[in-house]
Amino acid sequence: MTPTVLVLNGPNLNLLGTREPEIYGRDTLKSIEAACKKRAKGLGLKVAFRQSNNEGDLVDWVQQASKKYQALIVNAGAYTHTSVALLDALLATDLPVVEVHLSNIHQRDEFRHHSYVSKAADGVICGLGGIGYELALEALACRLGTVEDA
Amino acid sequence: MTPTVLVLNGPNLNLLGTREPEIYGRDTLKSIEAACKKRAKGLGLKVAFRQSNNEGDLVDWVQQASKKYQALIVNAGAYTHTSVALLDALLATDLPVVEVHLSNIHQRDEFRHHSYVSKAADGVICGLGGIGYELALEALACRLGTVEDA
Amino acid sequence: MTPTVLVLNGPNLNLLGTREPEIYGRDTLKSIEAACKKRAKGLGLKVAFRQSNNEGDLVDWVQQASKKYQALIVNAGAYTHTSVALLDALLATDLPVVEVHLSNIHQRDEFRHHSYVSKAADGVICGLGGIGYELALEALACRLGTVEDA
Amino acid sequence: MTPTVLVLNGPNLNLLGTREPEIYGRDTLKSIEAACKKRAKGLGLKVAFRQSNNEGDLVDWVQQASKKYQALIVNAGAYTHTSVALLDALLATDLPVVEVHLSNIHQRDEFRHHSYVSKAADGVICGLGGIGYELALEALACRLGTVEDA
Amino acid sequence: MTPTVLVLNGPNLNLLGTREPEIYGRDTLKSIEAACKKRAKGLGLKVAFRQSNNEGDLVDWVQQASKKYQALIVNAGAYTHTSVALLDALLATDLPVVEVHLSNIHQRDEFRHHSYVSKAADGVICGLGGIGYELALEALACRLGTVEDA
Amino acid sequence: MTPTVLVLNGPNLNLLGTREPEIYGRDTLKSIEAACKKRAKGLGLKVAFRQSNNEGDLVDWVQQASKKYQALIVNAGAYTHTSVALLDALLATDLPVVEVHLSNIHQRDEFRHHSYVSKAADGVICGLGGIGYELALEALACRLGTVEDA
Amino acid sequence: MTPTVLVLNGPNLNLLGTREPEIYGRDTLKSIEAACKKRAKGLGLKVAFRQSNNEGDLVDWVQQASKKYQALIVNAGAYTHTSVALLDALLATDLPVVEVHLSNIHQRDEFRHHSYVSKAADGVICGLGGIGYELALEALACRLGTVEDA
Amino acid sequence: MTPTVLVLNGPNLNLLGTREPEIYGRDTLKSIEAACKKRAKGLGLKVAFRQSNNEGDLVDWVQQASKKYQALIVNAGAYTHTSVALLDALLATDLPVVEVHLSNIHQRDEFRHHSYVSKAADGVICGLGGIGYELALEALACRLGTVEDA
Amino acid sequence: MTPTVLVLNGPNLNLLGTREPEIYGRDTLKSIEAACKKRAKGLGLKVAFRQSNNEGDLVDWVQQASKKYQALIVNAGAYTHTSVALLDALLATDLPVVEVHLSNIHQRDEFRHHSYVSKAADGVICGLGGIGYELALEALACRLGTVEDA
Amino acid sequence: MTPTVLVLNGPNLNLLGTREPEIYGRDTLKSIEAACKKRAKGLGLKVAFRQSNNEGDLVDWVQQASKKYQALIVNAGAYTHTSVALLDALLATDLPVVEVHLSNIHQRDEFRHHSYVSKAADGVICGLGGIGYELALEALACRLGTVEDA
Amino acid sequence: MTPTVLVLNGPNLNLLGTREPEIYGRDTLKSIEAACKKRAKGLGLKVAFRQSNNEGDLVDWVQQASKKYQALIVNAGAYTHTSVALLDALLATDLPVVEVHLSNIHQRDEFRHHSYVSKAADGVICGLGGIGYELALEALACRLGTVEDA
Amino acid sequence: MTPTVLVLNGPNLNLLGTREPEIYGRDTLKSIEAACKKRAKGLGLKVAFRQSNNEGDLVDWVQQASKKYQALIVNAGAYTHTSVALLDALLATDLPVVEVHLSNIHQRDEFRHHSYVSKAADGVICGLGGIGYELALEALACRLGTVEDA
Repeated sequence: MTPTVLVLNGPNLNLLGTREPEIYGRDTLKSIEAACKKRAKGLGLKVAFRQSNNEGDLVDWVQQASKKYQALIVNAGAYTHTSVALLDALLATDLPVVEVHLSNIHQRDEFRHHSYVSKAADGVICGLGGIGYELALEALACRLGTVEDA
Repeated sequence: MTPTVLVLNGPNLNLLGTREPEIYGRDTLKSIEAACKKRAKGLGLKVAFRQSNNEGDLVDWVQQASKKYQALIVNAGAYTHTSVALLDALLATDLPVVEVHLSNIHQRDEFRHHSYVSKAADGVICGLGGIGYELALEALACRLGTVEDA
Repeated sequence: MTPTVLVLNGPNLNLLGTREPEIYGRDTLKSIEAACKKRAKGLGLKVAFRQSNNEGDLVDWVQQASKKYQALIVNAGAYTHTSVALLDALLATDLPVVEVHLSNIHQRDEFRHHSYVSKAADGVICGLGGIGYELALEALACRLGTVEDA
Repeated sequence: MTPTVLVLNGPNLNLLGTREPEIYGRDTLKSIEAACKKRAKGLGLKVAFRQSNNEGDLVDWVQQASKKYQALIVNAGAYTHTSVALLDALLATDLPVVEVHLSNIHQRDEFRHHSYVSKAADGVICGLGGIGYELALEALACRLGTVEDA
Repeated sequence: MTPTVLVLNGPNLNLLGTREPEIYGRDTLKSIEAACKKRAKGLGLKVAFRQSNNEGDLVDWVQQASKKYQALIVNAGAYTHTSVALLDALLATDLPVVEVHLSNIHQRDEFRHHSYVSKAADGVICGLGGIGYELALEALACRLGTVEDA
Repeated sequence: MTPTVLVLNGPNLNLLGTREPEIYGRDTLKSIEAACKKRAKGLGLKVAFRQSNNEGDLVDWVQQASKKYQALIVNAGAYTHTSVALLDALLATDLPVVEVHLSNIHQRDEFRHHSYVSKAADGVICGLGGIGYELALEALACRLGTVEDA
Repeated sequence: MTPTVLVLNGPNLNLLGTREPEIYGRDTLKSIEAACKKRAKGLGLKVAFRQSNNEGDLVDWVQQASKKYQALIVNAGAYTHTSVALLDALLATDLPVVEVHLSNIHQRDEFRHHSYVSKAADGVICGLGGIGYELALEALACRLGTVEDA
Repeated sequence: MTPTVLVLNGPNLNLLGTREPEIYGRDTLKSIEAACKKRAKGLGLKVAFRQSNNEGDLVDWVQQASKKYQALIVNAGAYTHTSVALLDALLATDLPVVEVHLSNIHQRDEFRHHSYVSKAADGVICGLGGIGYELALEALACRLGTVEDA
Repeated sequence: MTPTVLVLNGPNLNLLGTREPEIYGRDTLKSIEAACKKRAKGLGLKVAFRQSNNEGDLVDWVQQASKKYQALIVNAGAYTHTSVALLDALLATDLPVVEVHLSNIHQRDEFRHHSYVSKAADGVICGLGGIGYELALEALACRLGTVEDA
Repeated sequence: MTPTVLVLNGPNLNLLGTREPEIYGRDTLKSIEAACKKRAKGLGLKVAFRQSNNEGDLVDWVQQASKKYQALIVNAGAYTHTSVALLDALLATDLPVVEVHLSNIHQRDEFRHHSYVSKAADGVICGLGGIGYELALEALACRLGTVEDA
Repeated sequence: MTPTVLVLNGPNLNLLGTREPEIYGRDTLKSIEAACKKRAKGLGLKVAFRQSNNEGDLVDWVQQASKKYQALIVNAGAYTHTSVALLDALLATDLPVVEVHLSNIHQRDEFRHHSYVSKAADGVICGLGGIGYELALEALACRLGTVEDA
Repeated sequence: MTPTVLVLNGPNLNLLGTREPEIYGRDTLKSIEAACKKRAKGLGLKVAFRQSNNEGDLVDWVQQASKKYQALIVNAGAYTHTSVALLDALLATDLPVVEVHLSNIHQRDEFRHHSYVSKAADGVICGLGGIGYELALEALACRLGTVEDA
């Protein structure tokens, strides 16, 4: 069966492409999803995209993920910096997790330098824009064995 | 002309594969270099690998990079956390820069959470092991236009 | 068309008038809403009041505000001090924003002195009780041009 | 009438028994609820159990508690450390409150040492596993007068 | 007798209109005074304006205020952040006090986020430009009973 | 043989009932001891009470405890916050340890929020007054198997 | 010639007796001056009292003191906590200096715990009310040799 | 009956006169005691002197003081900076307390600037050498009414 | 017309030559002024010297400087470290500013390491004694074009 | 006469060999004493061993040491990190002092990294286990001249 | 013999004129050297210029300086903020040292505000661009006596 | 084969005997080497001495040490406090490591109290001067089994 990667997007990522494009770029979440689907196919994967502005939704989705998905990509937006609840949900899952940020959070406000998600993620990709999601997919494909590691 | 990416590796990365493999994995710098060369070819790029235990060497190489190279991948090892000199060299270059770490530095000692390199890098990839270098290559290929962005 | 100001109220503000009246006063949210409606009329404005105990609701409402409203008054209650998600939503809107607090947050617990909302608000009014909302309306009326600036 | 204690459980406590059992033990929330019901009976009390991953739900429940319940037991999970909104709801209630944690939060990550809930709780019990809930019930029974204080 | 509000302005506010207008706006202290006088009349109040670059003058004026004035508006400029002497004078007065800042001090340098004046003021209005003084007048009018609270 | 719990009480606890009763309640150490003895009997335990104002005595008693006792309850009073020596003694014992405080130390001075004892205790009970000792006894009874866990 | 002690009083001390009497007591600066004069006589000293709300005045007076006075008593009020200028003036004088505070500054706001004056004073007396000035006089009398040290 | 002041001296004060005389002066504890006795007589008081290197002794003595003494002078030496136990004992006594230090602790190591004793003492005298004890006696004499306040 | 440099000197600089000469040297402000006048002449400049112990005077002088002067040299003495008011005045002026200190403030007390003046000054010269003023003059002469830059 | 070194051991060191042997090793204090005695002989020294769990005992012993001993070895155990009283006693002695720790305190809890004893000791040896005492003896033998420095 | 000043330049200063000219200006190190040589001649001095990106080279050069040079000018670039090794070398030399920075480091990143070099330099000149080196030369000429102090 | 200990010396240690002899003593590195060679012989060891001012050299030497040496003594001088690169090299080696400092770094500048080397060293010896190296040799001899542990 084709493994599926659940891609979780946190608050305000639904605004992508319109919100502060000088920071987040002009991709929309839709266009990123489309690119990921295309890329996933080439990697022997499927992807499912979700977005919520609600911390509890993200926690729910992470908790339920292992029943239907084989890996997680998490761009938790602002909850990256504040949500211990999300961290705990990620610590409780067995799925491989890659954290993604569109912008380089280390060049922004001091309070954006710290990530609770990083404490539970296998790897982190930030600052590379929408392609970061695709690179995360490839890293997970290697981990899941659908492509051969270089 | 095929663009070339200079891949700089900082202190102790020459020990890769033998040093604390539970943190850094069993890849050697040689095997990562080989994988990168193979991947680069597919991306329309070339790569040049260097390693030094000496902060000054890394600064020199960054300064001279723009004469012969079109992009930089920087895994500065321990100098990531201490070298303002390297930061300044990176701030002075026009080349695109992707920072790479094999381990997830945010799950290690507190003093490894902060990176001076991140202040000058376009993007950061960490915790994904040797494949992180390859993903960085792909991100740079998009930036340099040798592959089409998804 | 009469411009409308969306007035967002965060957690526990539905308890107003009963909760710690020595700090928050004896006005209820209902009576504040009534006073604002009356005042708004005199200023050539309309107001819409909302309250939620849920961080995600506040983020949703801010995101959707610019479609129907011309300005925002935000009393984010406790989320003032903890919600980067709300800050990001406010940074992404083009509407003028005035932050309001009933109590003087600078005379309370240390952790109430810092406001994420202030980083995105045009102005802040605190410590003046329910009339603070009305003064915010007047400031926005000037900004929106429905009254003449003194 | 038999007084009823509302037992609120925060994010990820629905995973109890499966999530990091070396930290949280092998009890499930169901088995804890059963034990509490049995103990409550002996103490002249009833208990109502709730769990949510959503900060806003916990705030709502605390706000409404005094209408139907006579006391609160709160294990706010990760919101213990981040939720000023929950603190404010607890400060606004007149019910006696006992905070419970299964693990000894003072032996875990630094950011788990601080509890906003403790600022509003009458007492705190942590590190004793599922029996902590039962001891909290007894403390409340004394407070409510359904058992005689020793 | 018409109550009079003493409006105290601290260092560099005499430069208003010429100094960093992108931060402080183009109003002069004179034009603000004129607007306040007009507004005061409508509110059943009188106003007296003073400005000094000298910390001691502000302390003197606060001390003497209760003999001739019924309320204080204080824009202490830079002394906001450094003057414990001014705080002590304000703590010693019985008059109602509203603190005003033209700019949103929470969006400026870190050292401008803290206000000693806020520890003694009933309310704070900042970031709304010159109209902030007028809103402060209205708040004081309510407090003094010369207008009816909404 | 009936297991015995050694209950250690630190400085100033001999004053209980007279010292700041609004914080510590009106129970005396004698009355708490009596209640514990009664409760212990029901739990199949015995208790031994000790009190000292001297840090060294508490260290001595913890060191010697395992020869005669099967568990420890420790209310170290002020040494809770300052005694690394006591922490080390507790770390060196194999006995189960429950820390007790009469008051909720998290609602008192900042320097009372940190407990060295918590780093070595299995569980912590605070803020519940004298009954906290009894609840600690029950928790230990479960641990020692003299009562059945619910 | 009878040595004279200059007694300097900082901001708001002119309000003594009326300002927050629960902190500063009901003595006025006049009554303290009178008591000091009487006591000084018995100690073979004279005293000169000054008060200003202006930091610069205090600096001026300290600078000029050694021409006419043989010792200093300094109650710098709020400037105690903020004035490096006053510290520098005191460091530059050869006169013996005793710092006095009416209230116990260590039991008040955190920012009142630090005194720049203490870095230059020979001794400090605080929390004893108006008699603190008299005790300072006696300490200086011993230092100046007008009374015999006990 | 003549009121008696208990004068407690902490660790190393038995070395007075020999230990670092450039900091503590050349008085011995004996000579200070003699001077205090003489002064006490003139003030209508008696004094009792004690010294211990043991924190627990100081706590014991403070606890028992109110049975035989009418006031306390406390020079807790190094325990000033570390003993919460002593603070708690002092908080529990009704006797007036004056804290004394021979040296000006604010001009010494950073860790000597903070005093737990100050949180419970009515007043503090430091840096004046042995005469500080005598001045403390006088302050207490006023408080106890054996001399008339100036 | 010969450009004139206003040289502002802060608190205690009138004591120069007598105050702590091991730190500040034996030059007096008079002798520095004389040397500057001589040097200014050679640089095609004039100088005006002022000194005050009063923060407000320095603010006033900076505000008025641009009417009569073409550049500023500021040795703010102790106000360097505490005066946001002076910083604001300097930020509001268009004149070039060089900050001077006689001593090397980075080798003195920690609280002297930070300078508010540096945030507004073009350049800083410290630790070189009286000649620092002359070097500042030369730097300003280059800036004003009265001498040719090397 | 053979010089004697007093070897002071702080709290819990009596447990050596049984307490956390993975940190402290399997030597007992007795076996270390025996080894030291043997080594001392070869170095022309004698040794006296003492241990106490009581801070005051250690202070007493340091105070009295110079009457009978020629040097000190101090392993203050947990008091290393908390005892200013012990520091003061060591500062008051003229004897040479070497601080010893069995474990490398810099690789343990953060609060064990700081040593008050180090502020008064001539040298420090840690992390070398029981032989650290012997090396300390040799260092003292050199200092006392009973062996020739290499 | 003409005294020679060794001018040491740290990392990235070889890029001068091309690197971030809005911060560092358009002078090259060559042009600064030329200007210094010219100025040196007029001051009776010679200069020798060196630059390295290597911390160790700077340490070596400082160590060897006193054999051939009479003074040092040090612009350590980024090593200013991180090199304790360079600080130690400077502390060990007897030569007079002036620290120079082209930009005003106090207006840049927080981590550039602190200089280890300042702890060993006689004086500091920053923010004045290339002419700062020349002013440093003049300061050293005065110190070396090749020109007369003004 | 005789085991050999590599003794690494960091920056400025080549200056030993001339640099700040009041801190570092009058031994030269040569004389320490001679003493170590003599001592090593008696311990059944050989020693090899190296010194560099270059961080990279120290890293190189540690990396290569295990090929030719059986143990390390590291006095990293200033790199002790700043070099994560050296720490990483030491973490990667299997050789036993003893850290040595001539001076007691805990009695010097605050920034010298922290050692990265200590995080990887088995033991630490500081403040004992040149003999510290010899004691380190003996500790290593025990570890390597060339002498019998006492």
